[in-house]
Amino acid sequence: MDIYQKALELHKEAHGKIEVISRAKITTKEDLAVYYSPGVAEPCRVIEKDPEQAYQLTRKNNLVAVITDGSAVLGLGDIGPAASMPVMEGKCALFKEFADVDAFPICLDTQDTDEIVRTIQLISKSFGGINLEDISAPRCFEIERRLKEVCDIPIFHDDQHGTAIVVAAALLNAIKVTGKSMGDLQIVINGAGAAGIAIAKHLIKMNFGNITLCDINGIISAEDPHLTSAQKEMLAVTNQDEKTGLLKDALIDADVFIGVSRPNLVTPEMVQSMNNGIIFALANPVPEIMPDIALEAGASVVGTGRSDFSNQINNVLVFPGLFKGALAARATAITNEMKIAASHAIASMIPDEELASDNIIVSPLNKEVAGVVAKAVADAVVE
Amino acid sequence: MDIYQKALELHKEAHGKIEVISRAKITTKEDLAVYYSPGVAEPCRVIEKDPEQAYQLTRKNNLVAVITDGSAVLGLGDIGPAASMPVMEGKCALFKEFADVDAFPICLDTQDTDEIVRTIQLISKSFGGINLEDISAPRCFEIERRLKEVCDIPIFHDDQHGTAIVVAAALLNAIKVTGKSMGDLQIVINGAGAAGIAIAKHLIKMNFGNITLCDINGIISAEDPHLTSAQKEMLAVTNQDEKTGLLKDALIDADVFIGVSRPNLVTPEMVQSMNNGIIFALANPVPEIMPDIALEAGASVVGTGRSDFSNQINNVLVFPGLFKGALAARATAITNEMKIAASHAIASMIPDEELASDNIIVSPLNKEVAGVVAKAVADAVVE
Repeated sequence: MDIYQKALELHKEAHGKIEVISRAKITTKEDLAVYYSPGVAEPCRVIEKDPEQAYQLTRKNNLVAVITDGSAVLGLGDIGPAASMPVMEGKCALFKEFADVDAFPICLDTQDTDEIVRTIQLISKSFGGINLEDISAPRCFEIERRLKEVCDIPIFHDDQHGTAIVVAAALLNAIKVTGKSMGDLQIVINGAGAAGIAIAKHLIKMNFGNITLCDINGIISAEDPHLTSAQKEMLAVTNQDEKTGLLKDALIDADVFIGVSRPNLVTPEMVQSMNNGIIFALANPVPEIMPDIALEAGASVVGTGRSDFSNQINNVLVFPGLFKGALAARATAITNEMKIAASHAIASMIPDEELASDNIIVSPLNKEVAGVVAKAVADAVVE
Repeated sequence: MDIYQKALELHKEAHGKIEVISRAKITTKEDLAVYYSPGVAEPCRVIEKDPEQAYQLTRKNNLVAVITDGSAVLGLGDIGPAASMPVMEGKCALFKEFADVDAFPICLDTQDTDEIVRTIQLISKSFGGINLEDISAPRCFEIERRLKEVCDIPIFHDDQHGTAIVVAAALLNAIKVTGKSMGDLQIVINGAGAAGIAIAKHLIKMNFGNITLCDINGIISAEDPHLTSAQKEMLAVTNQDEKTGLLKDALIDADVFIGVSRPNLVTPEMVQSMNNGIIFALANPVPEIMPDIALEAGASVVGTGRSDFSNQINNVLVFPGLFKGALAARATAITNEMKIAASHAIASMIPDEELASDNIIVSPLNKEVAGVVAKAVADAVVE
């Protein structure tokens, strides 16, 4: 049975991957009187006077909404709210399994930016944080920006920032293994949508060298007539040498390739043209170049999104711990400092003496990561 | 320690009364591959082709949203979304404890009817049913009506219909105890808001005698200049004798008093004027008349909303089983037939030989009720 058939069987068996349980056991008259009427009036009155008490008296303290509009789900594209639910439930299951954070999936039946923003704003009082998921670019940028303005809880688009944080973590360790210097790195990111742009911004904030963004038309440059407004904004902080041309031109002498694009775009020749290249080929399920081919062509380190190769770069390493830390510190937003702290915390899970070209990033199944990330993130809030 | 202090302590200790857990254990690479990426793509594709499969492959089959705008919470009134959460979490806890139905609380940060309808519509694909809660009249009528038009899952405003169903159940048994005849009953309902009107409609559908509605201005009649549009509609089916006057006038020779109004409105003299009166004094926490006073004045049966007297008329007897049945039968709406079936099922929980004036309704703590109600409701769907 292939993985997809097996997944279908197990989803039928599970009949849903999340479940809402009661933390109050209600068996006596007194239970009913204290947890429901009339006693419940008292916590209501306390929160009415002091809304902060919602974090003490309700589940808001540990509760994240995982919200999508179903417009850019996995590799499946625009499949709508009902069909995207298995992914959202899966994400919620990971939140609970890895960080003991309660997460609840909401799939919105609209792709209108104004409606998405308003709907999330109106339900946000029920939650301690909002994880946006699988919303297509460029709407995802505006939705996240506007929600940050109108909500007083952390808003986090995982496809952008979760990916950026884990890529930076892997890169921190990859440069240790290769002896490359952070500030001098020539980095090429292929894929200039939500994930690619977020990776670029995060690496810049962390002072990683020079970044060149490429998309399907080649290097993002002032001469490119196809640029989106988000891509145009990136021109100010990327491609400092004002290169033009195709991906293959960008890769000559580059130190790092980061692909969030499509299968098999990178050839052995391109890898050979790099400077002892670090390759993160994150297209899923088929990467931009297969690891064995990249290594044979001279790559120094190769990471992918896949569990069947070493160096799996997966944002399950990020979101459970990040939200756990943000909730613990009662953060009102996810700041750059918190994201940078998360990258360093994930990188730190491999001790220097164990670092190797096939061991730059901790396993996504390691259940200690979330606690370490949470602590680092919460400390970054306090600072 | 009084009940309110105790409730506050226990709410602090519980740190929220609901919790979202994972039904999938994720510890191995294969777990991650089947419950999340890449395997999860398969249930997504299956639902995209056939949306009904969402009931097999996600939690939609057992999941109800408990939604309020915080405008009419318990006896507390308009306390807003954050402060109403303890009540909604309590309700969700009862759903799970009594019927093993997963329920999730959503408190909306708006009291605009259009926004409430649209927001609930947009999130409704994530749920198998919607329980509206503590939304003030008359908005609650329009909100429920419009949601029924735009959603393809059951919509149920518990303050209206839950109360009506349990009152009818109690009345079915009260007339057995008193030997009164269903069709001949003279019934006075005091309180002509959401609950009072819903009780009247449900009793009429069940063919319970003649109903007179009263509110703070006395008997609802064509001469009353204060009527709301919902009250005007009720004129066609209530007060067939075209009575006018005050509550005390309505109660002369009446068989049944049902109060969903305010404390201590009913005097012993009013009870004495009734015909061997059945008194359901449901104002909470202080009823329209205290049971001992009503009994002393000649009432035949007395029920209240309180757990410290016999005959507790509480809609926790209704909503867990009603939704369990509706979900099991994949109902697309809650019909009159389902509501009537629920009333009879609840009434049936007291065998005829155990019926007595102080034993007309099963305890709200009886955990067999939900299963019996669910079966009756599901059968009513199939018919």
